[in-house]
Amino acid sequence: MKIQTLIIVLLALGLVFVSYKWATASATSDKEENTESNVALENIMTRTSVRSYTADTISSNDIETLLKAAMAAPTAGNKQPWRYVVVQNRATLDSIGANFGSMKMATLAPLAILVCGDVDATFPGDGRDYWIEDTSAAMENLLLAAHSIGLGAVWCGIYPMPDRVAAFSEMFSLPENIKPMGIAMIGHPDGSHTPKDKWKPDYVKYESWK
Amino acid sequence: MKIQTLIIVLLALGLVFVSYKWATASATSDKEENTESNVALENIMTRTSVRSYTADTISSNDIETLLKAAMAAPTAGNKQPWRYVVVQNRATLDSIGANFGSMKMATLAPLAILVCGDVDATFPGDGRDYWIEDTSAAMENLLLAAHSIGLGAVWCGIYPMPDRVAAFSEMFSLPENIKPMGIAMIGHPDGSHTPKDKWKPDYVKYESWK
Repeated sequence: MKIQTLIIVLLALGLVFVSYKWATASATSDKEENTESNVALENIMTRTSVRSYTADTISSNDIETLLKAAMAAPTAGNKQPWRYVVVQNRATLDSIGANFGSMKMATLAPLAILVCGDVDATFPGDGRDYWIEDTSAAMENLLLAAHSIGLGAVWCGIYPMPDRVAAFSEMFSLPENIKPMGIAMIGHPDGSHTPKDKWKPDYVKYESWK
Repeated sequence: MKIQTLIIVLLALGLVFVSYKWATASATSDKEENTESNVALENIMTRTSVRSYTADTISSNDIETLLKAAMAAPTAGNKQPWRYVVVQNRATLDSIGANFGSMKMATLAPLAILVCGDVDATFPGDGRDYWIEDTSAAMENLLLAAHSIGLGAVWCGIYPMPDRVAAFSEMFSLPENIKPMGIAMIGHPDGSHTPKDKWKPDYVKYESWK
């Protein structure tokens, strides 16, 4: 009788355990499915400009991930006029941080990626300035990719400010046809960063402006 | 002796089962972590221009998701100069498709979102043209969000082509300060669409152009 009780207790405990594991396992897999489509959206909604970084460097594998993501953006007529300069030289980054007030965080960043457009590689005539849109879409992909792998980044504007365009062109020996659009400062985020809520229903019109 | 054996067998089976469930549960959660960061990246890498759509309409909930994602993009000085016109009117979409060769797919699309910039809402002087970069980043977010919820979209360029800027400004009664940057045609993809591999290591320089 004692041993039978023990068996029943053991069986009951086993059943409880099995039910619990099964229940939590299927809850997890449901969550997985729902989140799968939302993870990409959530990554877009939670990305924010990160301006302080830890001292950790960034792997060449992560750098390639960022560049591949940038190049996955669409370009007008599939001209792919974007060009990139990867910057990890401490003296260069410090000099950028020292010379541009809005780029102070460069002194903390282990990495910057300068996103440029080759104006000879896009449409001639009126369509030439599509390079600005193409490089901006690439920059946004790069920022989203950084966030998705746990890095923090901020887009610092260069073009169309003439002084910045001149300074970056000289600093990186850019040929005449290569225009610096913007530079992303990138690092491992130092602390947590809360995204802004920028939803403005008033900025949406339907069918016509008026 | 028989009952003791039974208990031992039961205990052993229990242990095997528990170990198995634990092993698979932790394998799943490892995979979850890896995939979690990759789903967002994969969404970036698999997005491609989709130009043919089924007849299905798009819910207002999905439209709001696209607009929220667009507005989550960064803007220079956080000026948020983007403005949007949501277009579902069949006659308007058909007229766009009929009038612009590169926008033929508008006749199939149940939805288009015109992304504009308010040039009075950004920096004055040289910084005015940051609106082009800001609206382009927003457009890229919108395209990525569409892909993440199973929609297909294509970015059709308007600015800086003077004829297109004039035509869209008139069609949507845009005030002088509202510039149409581009329009996304959006629908449920008709068939599958393979993303292009645009990875070009030659377009990357290190530390300096030369």
